[in-house]
Amino acid sequence: DFQMALNEVHPAFGVSEEELEQVIQNGIIHYDAVIEEILKTGQLFVEQVRTSTRTPLVSILLHGPSGSGKTALAAYMAQASEYPFIKLISPDFMLGYGEPQKISAITKVFTDSYKSPLSVIVLDNIERLIEWTPMGARFSNGVLQTLLVLLKRRPPKGRRLLVIATSSLRPILTDLGLSDTFDSELRVPPITDLVSLEYVLQEVQLFNSDQERHRAIRMLQDAGFTANKNDYDSKLQIGIKKLLSMIEMARQEPENVAERLTTALMGLGM
Amino acid sequence: DFQMALNEVHPAFGVSEEELEQVIQNGIIHYDAVIEEILKTGQLFVEQVRTSTRTPLVSILLHGPSGSGKTALAAYMAQASEYPFIKLISPDFMLGYGEPQKISAITKVFTDSYKSPLSVIVLDNIERLIEWTPMGARFSNGVLQTLLVLLKRRPPKGRRLLVIATSSLRPILTDLGLSDTFDSELRVPPITDLVSLEYVLQEVQLFNSDQERHRAIRMLQDAGFTANKNDYDSKLQIGIKKLLSMIEMARQEPENVAERLTTALMGLGM
Amino acid sequence: DFQMALNEVHPAFGVSEEELEQVIQNGIIHYDAVIEEILKTGQLFVEQVRTSTRTPLVSILLHGPSGSGKTALAAYMAQASEYPFIKLISPDFMLGYGEPQKISAITKVFTDSYKSPLSVIVLDNIERLIEWTPMGARFSNGVLQTLLVLLKRRPPKGRRLLVIATSSLRPILTDLGLSDTFDSELRVPPITDLVSLEYVLQEVQLFNSDQERHRAIRMLQDAGFTANKNDYDSKLQIGIKKLLSMIEMARQEPENVAERLTTALMGLGM
Amino acid sequence: DFQMALNEVHPAFGVSEEELEQVIQNGIIHYDAVIEEILKTGQLFVEQVRTSTRTPLVSILLHGPSGSGKTALAAYMAQASEYPFIKLISPDFMLGYGEPQKISAITKVFTDSYKSPLSVIVLDNIERLIEWTPMGARFSNGVLQTLLVLLKRRPPKGRRLLVIATSSLRPILTDLGLSDTFDSELRVPPITDLVSLEYVLQEVQLFNSDQERHRAIRMLQDAGFTANKNDYDSKLQIGIKKLLSMIEMARQEPENVAERLTTALMGLGM
Amino acid sequence: DFQMALNEVHPAFGVSEEELEQVIQNGIIHYDAVIEEILKTGQLFVEQVRTSTRTPLVSILLHGPSGSGKTALAAYMAQASEYPFIKLISPDFMLGYGEPQKISAITKVFTDSYKSPLSVIVLDNIERLIEWTPMGARFSNGVLQTLLVLLKRRPPKGRRLLVIATSSLRPILTDLGLSDTFDSELRVPPITDLVSLEYVLQEVQLFNSDQERHRAIRMLQDAGFTANKNDYDSKLQIGIKKLLSMIEMARQEPENVAERLTTALMGLGM
Amino acid sequence: DFQMALNEVHPAFGVSEEELEQVIQNGIIHYDAVIEEILKTGQLFVEQVRTSTRTPLVSILLHGPSGSGKTALAAYMAQASEYPFIKLISPDFMLGYGEPQKISAITKVFTDSYKSPLSVIVLDNIERLIEWTPMGARFSNGVLQTLLVLLKRRPPKGRRLLVIATSSLRPILTDLGLSDTFDSELRVPPITDLVSLEYVLQEVQLFNSDQERHRAIRMLQDAGFTANKNDYDSKLQIGIKKLLSMIEMARQEPENVAERLTTALMGLGM
Ligand SMILES: Nc1ncnc2c1ncn2[C@@H]1O[C@H](COP(=O)(O)OP(=O)(O)OP(=O)(O)O)[C@@H](O)[C@H]1O
Ligand SMILES: Nc1ncnc2c1ncn2[C@@H]1O[C@H](COP(=O)(O)OP(=O)(O)OP(=O)(O)O)[C@@H](O)[C@H]1O
Ligand SMILES: Nc1ncnc2c1ncn2[C@@H]1O[C@H](COP(=O)(O)OP(=O)(O)OP(=O)(O)O)[C@@H](O)[C@H]1O
Ligand SMILES: Nc1ncnc2c1ncn2[C@@H]1O[C@H](COP(=O)(O)OP(=O)(O)OP(=O)(O)O)[C@@H](O)[C@H]1O
Ligand SMILES: Nc1ncnc2c1ncn2[C@@H]1O[C@H](COP(=O)(O)OP(=O)(O)OP(=O)(O)O)[C@@H](O)[C@H]1O
Ligand SMILES: Nc1ncnc2c1ncn2[C@@H]1O[C@H](COP(=O)(O)OP(=O)(O)OP(=O)(O)O)[C@@H](O)[C@H]1O
Ligand SMILES: [Mg+2]
Ligand SMILES: [Mg+2]
Ligand SMILES: [Mg+2]
Ligand SMILES: [Mg+2]
Ligand SMILES: [Mg+2]
Ligand SMILES: [Mg+2]
Repeated sequence: DFQMALNEVHPAFGVSEEELEQVIQNGIIHYDAVIEEILKTGQLFVEQVRTSTRTPLVSILLHGPSGSGKTALAAYMAQASEYPFIKLISPDFMLGYGEPQKISAITKVFTDSYKSPLSVIVLDNIERLIEWTPMGARFSNGVLQTLLVLLKRRPPKGRRLLVIATSSLRPILTDLGLSDTFDSELRVPPITDLVSLEYVLQEVQLFNSDQERHRAIRMLQDAGFTANKNDYDSKLQIGIKKLLSMIEMARQEPENVAERLTTALMGLGM
Repeated sequence: DFQMALNEVHPAFGVSEEELEQVIQNGIIHYDAVIEEILKTGQLFVEQVRTSTRTPLVSILLHGPSGSGKTALAAYMAQASEYPFIKLISPDFMLGYGEPQKISAITKVFTDSYKSPLSVIVLDNIERLIEWTPMGARFSNGVLQTLLVLLKRRPPKGRRLLVIATSSLRPILTDLGLSDTFDSELRVPPITDLVSLEYVLQEVQLFNSDQERHRAIRMLQDAGFTANKNDYDSKLQIGIKKLLSMIEMARQEPENVAERLTTALMGLGM
Repeated sequence: DFQMALNEVHPAFGVSEEELEQVIQNGIIHYDAVIEEILKTGQLFVEQVRTSTRTPLVSILLHGPSGSGKTALAAYMAQASEYPFIKLISPDFMLGYGEPQKISAITKVFTDSYKSPLSVIVLDNIERLIEWTPMGARFSNGVLQTLLVLLKRRPPKGRRLLVIATSSLRPILTDLGLSDTFDSELRVPPITDLVSLEYVLQEVQLFNSDQERHRAIRMLQDAGFTANKNDYDSKLQIGIKKLLSMIEMARQEPENVAERLTTALMGLGM
Repeated sequence: DFQMALNEVHPAFGVSEEELEQVIQNGIIHYDAVIEEILKTGQLFVEQVRTSTRTPLVSILLHGPSGSGKTALAAYMAQASEYPFIKLISPDFMLGYGEPQKISAITKVFTDSYKSPLSVIVLDNIERLIEWTPMGARFSNGVLQTLLVLLKRRPPKGRRLLVIATSSLRPILTDLGLSDTFDSELRVPPITDLVSLEYVLQEVQLFNSDQERHRAIRMLQDAGFTANKNDYDSKLQIGIKKLLSMIEMARQEPENVAERLTTALMGLGM
Repeated sequence: DFQMALNEVHPAFGVSEEELEQVIQNGIIHYDAVIEEILKTGQLFVEQVRTSTRTPLVSILLHGPSGSGKTALAAYMAQASEYPFIKLISPDFMLGYGEPQKISAITKVFTDSYKSPLSVIVLDNIERLIEWTPMGARFSNGVLQTLLVLLKRRPPKGRRLLVIATSSLRPILTDLGLSDTFDSELRVPPITDLVSLEYVLQEVQLFNSDQERHRAIRMLQDAGFTANKNDYDSKLQIGIKKLLSMIEMARQEPENVAERLTTALMGLGM
Repeated sequence: DFQMALNEVHPAFGVSEEELEQVIQNGIIHYDAVIEEILKTGQLFVEQVRTSTRTPLVSILLHGPSGSGKTALAAYMAQASEYPFIKLISPDFMLGYGEPQKISAITKVFTDSYKSPLSVIVLDNIERLIEWTPMGARFSNGVLQTLLVLLKRRPPKGRRLLVIATSSLRPILTDLGLSDTFDSELRVPPITDLVSLEYVLQEVQLFNSDQERHRAIRMLQDAGFTANKNDYDSKLQIGIKKLLSMIEMARQEPENVAERLTTALMGLGM
């Protein structure tokens, strides 16, 4: 069930619950086994931080193309940890901050976390935090350096911290000097096969009947999309986030839902 | 009728009506079917935001060459929404602002919009807002980053927002990191065929008789302009805005209107 | 007559007359038909702004090589308009201004103009206003962006504005993002034929007799300069401003006027 | 014994003991002869500074890939010196400092050291101190210049100072102008052979029996890792720091320890 | 006579006499006809400014290699003008000035000059005023722009100004946008023939007898230096300034004067 | 004798004696004739400044590879002058200074010198003063420009100044615009032959007997080092400063002195 994920989680005191829920507003849909794997690996790290005394700091990176669900998955893992300290660092809360303000806001969350025996920090959207733009390869070196230090600085004795970062900058991590920073990296892929797509369509009840949904899928097959996700020629390449947005758009024209969806998905490749 | 568009719209309270009217001062002329299509798509997004609970934020981009009518169409869509909150963000109101002032002015409009259940923001002229110049590829990264965040930040629970942005920067959106930002992109093309041109001439009554107008069109055909807009060799490539300006220039010499118009249009290609 | 131009103009109240006269101190010499054409086109735009309700803002650019007479012609057009508001924006008045001061000084002139029903602004020497230098392609992006906005911002309802800009940056307007900014562009060419040159010599009475002048022209012909301005191999390429300066230099040696002029003109090509 | 190192050291008064212990929390494991050699060379420099009057300032650099153990070894050498003044300069303590603050903090430690007859300063992580990032080759030149001066400035008469710096920037030291700065450079290599690896596994007691450990090593051999560290095709290339982190991760799944370790080590090469 | 130049000049009131004399401390030696020509041309411009009403502003540039005598010649011309206002703008007086201070100091001299009916300003060493360095082509654009404006800004009615600038930047004037700025450019060449050299040696009485001097010249000929200044293979290329300095050096070893001079001159080519 | 140099010098009042002695702490060892030559040339310039009225300002540059002895030789020359004003300008005294502070500190020393009839200034380590770094060719243009002016600005009438600068930037002096700045340049070479090396070993008494020293030299010969300094294939290339440091290192292992020295010297080439 598509709302199930959230309800299973009961975060403890001192947690920025509202902010986390905001980013998983549309729930986690299990359209593919990879989602389960990612969540399970996250759980393992949560356990490692809780139990191993030799690794008081563990940092992992969720990376993948735009809209593939990184933020939602990171927030979900954080909530599921049930640690007493759970915080989201997001560019959304730092609009208009100058570089020094950003640096001190980010640093403060880490310093605060050192007061709790067990903490998890979601460091969302590294590219936006460092104000990255491909044009001229510009970014805030000050924020980047702060992250480079914070992601390696051990918490004080007796404190443990898990950092879950998200980014779509994987291709240039090395150039930014971030390649050796994380203990582990997990890829969050886009949807590339019709089986996953159909699963999503069903979950969000875009169509009133199975029949209509099947018809839409056939229409997509006719348009050249393939069911097999290992097919490297697959024309389908869409993040769950954009897919959900397209579905709502299509919903506006009840008489033409399948056509509009097909057109929208085909428009992506261009 | 060339003034009809505006009069059909009755904007609600809390709307910056005057500013919007200013940019559609010369009305919307329906010289081609594409204008209708653009306006209709805009209407669909207006409805989606009004009705779908899963997409509280929708952002679209009107792009096209200089003077093709982007700002007027965006303003028209916004007015037609009849949402309680309609605002125009334009570089015209930010002359002499430093980067931090610009950032906070833009952010404020978004924050204000969160107080209304339904809002539409026209984000006009992205290239000027980010102070883009091709020479040295300079721009304000601070403003760009602010837009990147605002265009993706969900409004608080129960609030919904439609953003209609305009820009002629389409070719470099990817380099600016803006390519995955919009839910949809609509192209506003320039006028490239004589049929559209003649429609405009008629609407603005440049000539006193149909005869004179036909003569002018023939003169243009003789000069090598073609009637067919699918003709890729078409020498005609002019935004509605510049066309209207040329028409007024030609009007100054009543005895030579057709000649002057032809000369002006031929001068463009050089 | 070489002083005639100025005396025909009677500017109205509120006009920065002194500054304008300063830049046309040496009058307008009608050495070629192109001068007449430029002035007449200027007059047409003056009329358009005065009469057409659909184009409350018209901006034109006088461009050409260094010293070709751009500033003098722009100032002349402005004075001849007899609009109630006539202002010159020139880098001469902004020495030592920082970028923000420059921006606000320029903006103020435009804002002031909005108080008059009819205004003309001479925006002199765009390259200097934006502090352009070819070395490293440096310039003030802040000032450039201000110009880009001001040159397109419509005056408030009922106000009309004509902007006459001058620049020798034509070759890089596109790189600066200024190419679609002006409603019209007029080229002010340098002097390239001996007929024009002789006209000037006569006007400023460099020689005491026609004979002497003819002798000088022959000397120039012998030196390889041609009478025909359509001759693309013409070695002559000189702005009226530099020519007037050379003439004064030559005047210093009464016994050698023709020789000195020839030498000076030949030195240019090197 | 894997905790032995630390307990043998009894630092004198005025020493930042806690900070130093923090960075060698996991002790020094003698998995290879090179560790002994590095420590012995360090000891020699400690003696030279203590005894030779002609070299009151000696600076050495520990360099090597990320996580190879540079910081821990430098801190160990410093503690082992038993000098009255032992200080750690680390980017961890300078988060949010601007360039001038950083410069003065670093300078202060050196100036303080001049008050003690014998001092050792660990200058940890030069790349982070100078805020180096490969992207655009950005760094703080102010901090770099400060280091260039401090690393060569002789202490006042009667004072002696040993500086132990760490860095993974060896490949670009020359470009930074740092190549002639150090009296000696010591390479801290990563682990590249299974013998060293097995030594570490034994020390940290990842497996409950020798049998299980042997099985894991065989599994790694089957996966293509070689025992011989002089084998240049060795797929193994891992810093002791990351290895210890992977071991803890593997420990989470008691039933699959060997498999998880193998997978993790193989993932590095990709 | 080598001190004659100075004594012939009697500057009027309001002149910064001391500063000017400082830079021509070693007088003007007439080692070649070109010196006379330069001075005479300067005199012509002085006359033009004094007499012609159409050119109230004349600016000339003395350019040439390092130490060729530009500053001394410019100062000499200025003094010889006997104008009531004579000022030297030199980087020597602006040490430690920031860009805005420099700009206002330079501007002030020009503004002051407008109070005198006749003024001459020596604008010494443009490259230093704009803080030019070939490495990275760095310079102060603010100062450059100020010069670009001041060198073209007409003095108020009834005021006349001659600007004599010096620079060794001739090769990059175009890149700096300075190429059309000066009414005239005069080259100050280095010494390239033995005849000029011998003239200088005689003037400064390096040798006690003609015989000794002749011997030195022969020694130089043997070393490959040629007497003919039109010989393009000439190895001799030395500014009068450096030559005078070498002569003083050679004077220190009375027994070896000729040898030392030859060695020094030969060292230049390397 | 290796301490002899210093004791022969008796600096006059107003001299920063302590600072100068600090930099020649290890004395001047006359390991090669070139040292004598350099010092003698220095003496000649000291005399020239003292005696010649035509050259009140003389500036020379000691350049050479890192640690070749530039600073010590410059300080020695300055002390030996016995001028009433002797000052050392060194980056060591300017740690943490911003650009303006640096500029004013440097300028002050020059201005102070103008109060003494005879002055010598050691301008040590130009590369550090201008904060040069090869990476990105960064440096402080402000400090560079200050040096460019100060190194050419004549002291006031009756004052004389000798500037002895040191730098290892010789290869890029031209790019920095410093190539025509100095009246003379002296190269301070590194040690490249075993004869010089042995001389140094003897002076600092590394070995207890001639026999042991001879054995060490033979060991070096066997390792491929050659006695002949004109041998361009010479593997030996070491500054006296680093050599002295290596010697002290080797001294730590009395049983292995020769071996350690050989290893250290061989390590340089890599
Ligand atoms: N399996 C899933 N994984 C992640 N998100 C899911 C999943 N199923 C549904 N969603 C929904 O999809 C959306 C994913 O958006 P999210 O912001 O997490 O993507 P993102 O990769 O962080 O995007 P961006 O690249 O813009 O940062 C959320 O609204 C989430 O509730
Ligand atoms: N069909 C139309 N679409 C858009 N504008 C129209 C249309 N018909 C007439 N107009 C008029 O044309 C002008 C279009 O100018 P507008 O400023 O909108 O163009 P633009 O593409 O935003 O220009 P720019 O690239 O300079 O921002 C307006 O004055 C508008 O009233
Ligand atoms: N026909 C003419 N057109 C323009 N200027 C003329 C003409 N005849 C004479 N003049 C005189 O020539 C001079 C032209 O100089 P002006 O400053 O206008 O040139 P410019 O092109 O603006 O130079 P710059 O490129 O330096 O800005 C003025 O003094 C003007 O009085
Ligand atoms: N032989 C060893 N040498 C160094 N460190 C060891 C050794 N054995 C165990 N360790 C442990 O391994 C870790 C080495 O981490 P350390 O921070 O010193 O590496 P580093 O090279 O400085 O990393 P980075 O490149 O991130 O700065 C420490 O926790 C240390 O206690
Ligand atoms: N014919 C001459 N022309 C110029 N200077 C001369 C001449 N004869 C002697 N001198 C002396 O030579 C020196 C020339 O130095 P000056 O500073 O003028 O050269 P410069 O070209 O300005 O040098 P720089 O390129 O460093 O600015 C002065 O001391 C001047 O007195
Ligand atoms: N002949 C010599 N010349 C110079 N220095 C010598 C000589 N003999 C011994 N020394 C000693 O060698 C050292 C030379 O170091 P110095 O700092 O002068 O070198 P440097 O070239 O300035 O180094 P750097 O390139 O780092 O500035 C000094 O300690 C000095 O006492
Ligand atoms: Mg995200
Ligand atoms: Mg627009
Ligand atoms: Mg002009
Ligand atoms: Mg480290
Ligand atoms: Mg000079
Ligand atoms: Mg030195």
